Order: sequence, then C-alpha cells, then structure tokens
Amino acid sequence: MTPLDGIMDSQVFLAFFTYATIVILKMMLMSHLTSYYRLTKKVFANLEDTKLLSSTVDKKLIGTDPDVERVRRCHLNDLENIVPFVVVGLFYALTQPELSCALLHFRVFAGSRIFHTIAYVGALPQPCRGLAYMLGALVNVSMSFQVLSAVLVL
Amino acid sequence: MTPLDGIMDSQVFLAFFTYATIVILKMMLMSHLTSYYRLTKKVFANLEDTKLLSSTVDKKLIGTDPDVERVRRCHLNDLENIVPFVVVGLFYALTQPELSCALLHFRVFAGSRIFHTIAYVGALPQPCRGLAYMLGALVNVSMSFQVLSAVLVL
Amino acid sequence: MTPLDGIMDSQVFLAFFTYATIVILKMMLMSHLTSYYRLTKKVFANLEDTKLLSSTVDKKLIGTDPDVERVRRCHLNDLENIVPFVVVGLFYALTQPELSCALLHFRVFAGSRIFHTIAYVGALPQPCRGLAYMLGALVNVSMSFQVLSAVLVL
Repeated sequence: MTPLDGIMDSQVFLAFFTYATIVILKMMLMSHLTSYYRLTKKVFANLEDTKLLSSTVDKKLIGTDPDVERVRRCHLNDLENIVPFVVVGLFYALTQPELSCALLHFRVFAGSRIFHTIAYVGALPQPCRGLAYMLGALVNVSMSFQVLSAVLVL
Repeated sequence: MTPLDGIMDSQVFLAFFTYATIVILKMMLMSHLTSYYRLTKKVFANLEDTKLLSSTVDKKLIGTDPDVERVRRCHLNDLENIVPFVVVGLFYALTQPELSCALLHFRVFAGSRIFHTIAYVGALPQPCRGLAYMLGALVNVSMSFQVLSAVLVL
Repeated sequence: MTPLDGIMDSQVFLAFFTYATIVILKMMLMSHLTSYYRLTKKVFANLEDTKLLSSTVDKKLIGTDPDVERVRRCHLNDLENIVPFVVVGLFYALTQPELSCALLHFRVFAGSRIFHTIAYVGALPQPCRGLAYMLGALVNVSMSFQVLSAVLVL
C-alpha cells in the first residue's frame, strides 16, 4: 500500500477528478469549434493556414469573423474560470469537506460552465450567459473562502 | 488518520494553498473589473449584452475601449503568470523546501502580482509594471529550477 | 517519513513533474519572445511602454504587428493546451499507470508542444503546426479517458 491509495480511496477526490476532467474536456472542445468555424466561415489568422482551403497562399482569407471571435471569447472565458476551479477545487478537496457538499459545488460548476458555453455560442439573450458565469464564479469564491478558513498561513 | 493529513500538517503546503488561493482570487477579480469598465464605458463585445443598458439591441454599443482592453491584457497576463505559479509551486512544495525559503518565494510572487495589477490598471509609468512582471517571473524560474534539480526524470 | 515520500518515490510522478515543468518553462519563454518582438518591431500595446524606446510618450508606437500577434496567438494556444496537460496529467499520474506508458504520453506531449512553437513562430507550411497541435491534444484526450475510466464518480 502506498500513501497515494488514500487519495484514490476518497470519494471527494474521485468526484473532483471526474468533474475537473469533464470541464477540461469541454474546454478543449472549444479549440475544435474554433477550427470548425474558421474552415466553414473561411477566415484564418495565419497566412500559412489559407493553404488548407486554397491551392495558393491567399491573403483574402485572412481576417476576423464575428462567430469565430465569439467562440474565441468563450474559450478565453473558460480558461479564466476553469483554471481557478481546478486549482482551488484541489485545495478544497484536501480540506476534507462533506461529500454531499463537495458534490454540490462540483456539479453546479460543471453545469454552469456547460450552460455558459451553450448561451455564449448560441448567443442566447442576456442574462442567460451572465447568470451562468455568476453561478460558476460563486462556486469558486465559496471554495476559496473554505480553503482560506481551513489553511490560512500568511 | 489518512495520508492526506501529511499534506495538511505541512506548513509549506498550507502557505502554498493560502498564497495560491489569494492570487487566484485576485485574478478572478479582473473579470468583474472588465464588466465594470464595460458597463461604465458602454462598450460591449456581444450584441446580446447591449440589452443590459438599452431597451433594444444596439449596434452602436459594440466596440473596443482602451481602458477595457487594458484590463483584458492585465487579466491575460495574470493567466500567463499565475498558471505557472500554481503548477510549479505545487511541485516545489512537494520537494520539501525550508519554510522560510518557500514563504519568501510565495510572498514575493503574490506581492509582485498585486503590484503588477495596480501598475497595469493605473497605467503607472514604466518600468513599474515591467519590474513587477520580472519579479514574479523570477520566482517561477527559481522554483522551476529547484523542482528540476530535485526530480529530473527524462 | 512523511506520506509525501510516497509521491516523491514514484517514478511516474517524478517524470510528470519534470515534463510539466519543462512545458511550463517553455510557455513562460513566450512572454519574453513577445517583449523581444515588441522592442525590435517597435509596436506596443500600452502608451506608457513607448517611453522604453523614446524620450516622450509616443502615440505612433502604439499598434499591432503581424509577428507580435503571431507570438501572442502561439502563447494563448499554449495556455489552452498546457493547462489541460498539467491538470489531467496529475490525475493520470495518480491512477498509477505503467511507467513506460506514462513516459510515452509525457514525452510525446512535450515534444509536440516544442515543435508546435517552432512551427507557429517560424510560420512553417501547414499541416506542420496542425499535426503538432493534434498530437498534443490526442495525449490530453487519451489521459482524460484513462482518468475517467479509473475514477468516475458523478
């Protein structure tokens, strides 16, 4: 038996690993969505990429498109919110919270980020996206304060 | 007693969790600062967001503003520097450094990033922001080399 | 002996720490590459930065340059791919995979990201960069599915 078994025996950790991997996979999907929009809308950021669609390098295919920029902003917003979740979530799992309370945090965060993506890419009317963002941020703030109240060493 | 108690008994880890959570919370604040500037400067990135300020969708509210872009660049710079800190900092804490030495690294990093934000958003004259950035990057490089010298397996 | 020794005794973990630190260091290099291009191309994003090259604040030095934007896109692509690697890689190492299998994942990822940077900054003809990106993403997806099959708690 190694000390690591302790982590893999903890339901809170297994739940954290599951939900963190799910939101990371969701974030990685945004790269493919960007590629898909770039190819269908025929707008590229790099001159060498235009060769994918035309036989010669074509300057006319360089530009920006509202839909591509929308997916890029959604991807960046994911980074800005999912990085805090995976970092603070790991510390939070180490503070040995109640399983039900931890699951509530992880599920609300994963759900809010999936809905955020749908609201952003689908351009749903506000405040759909705003509320989804707020819900995810609240989970991060809630976990942060529980971590700080458990471990504070300045 | 679980193996995790070993981590929660280590002062170095508690200090790392504290400072990592503080810089992550600071980074999350940038999202709200962006929203605040967007609402007061009345410039939005998405058409559906303009409804927050006007009764109908208003194309004139779409655009960029130097102050909003400044906060966005500051947020991205945070991501680019705080992600290395939380990742390498965790590995560094696992190498069981001296508490005083670890605290020095964590405090200098947190301080430099908070000052970086003040210098960036407040547009302080250079090299204020440059020095704050360099100080944070030096902490990351110092921890990276200590990690590599302790664990190198290629 | 502390429980942490278990982690530092595991060859898989030492290899993960090594490769994760290497790709993080590579990502941090992109900031310096951006600064280098900004100074040699004389294009800045902030008015106060122009003082680094001219005696007075100079609005003409504010702008965008294709090479600077290329490095910035490469840096952002690093963030989008290296964050999933360090997060899922840590979970993957906790599932106690075979050392040879883990080393294969880590080495392919580190190699693909280093080649991706060369292909992006050097503007190599496609599909060089596309293949490097795909290889790195495949490693992340492979580790994600191994994590989910080992830990799934919904």
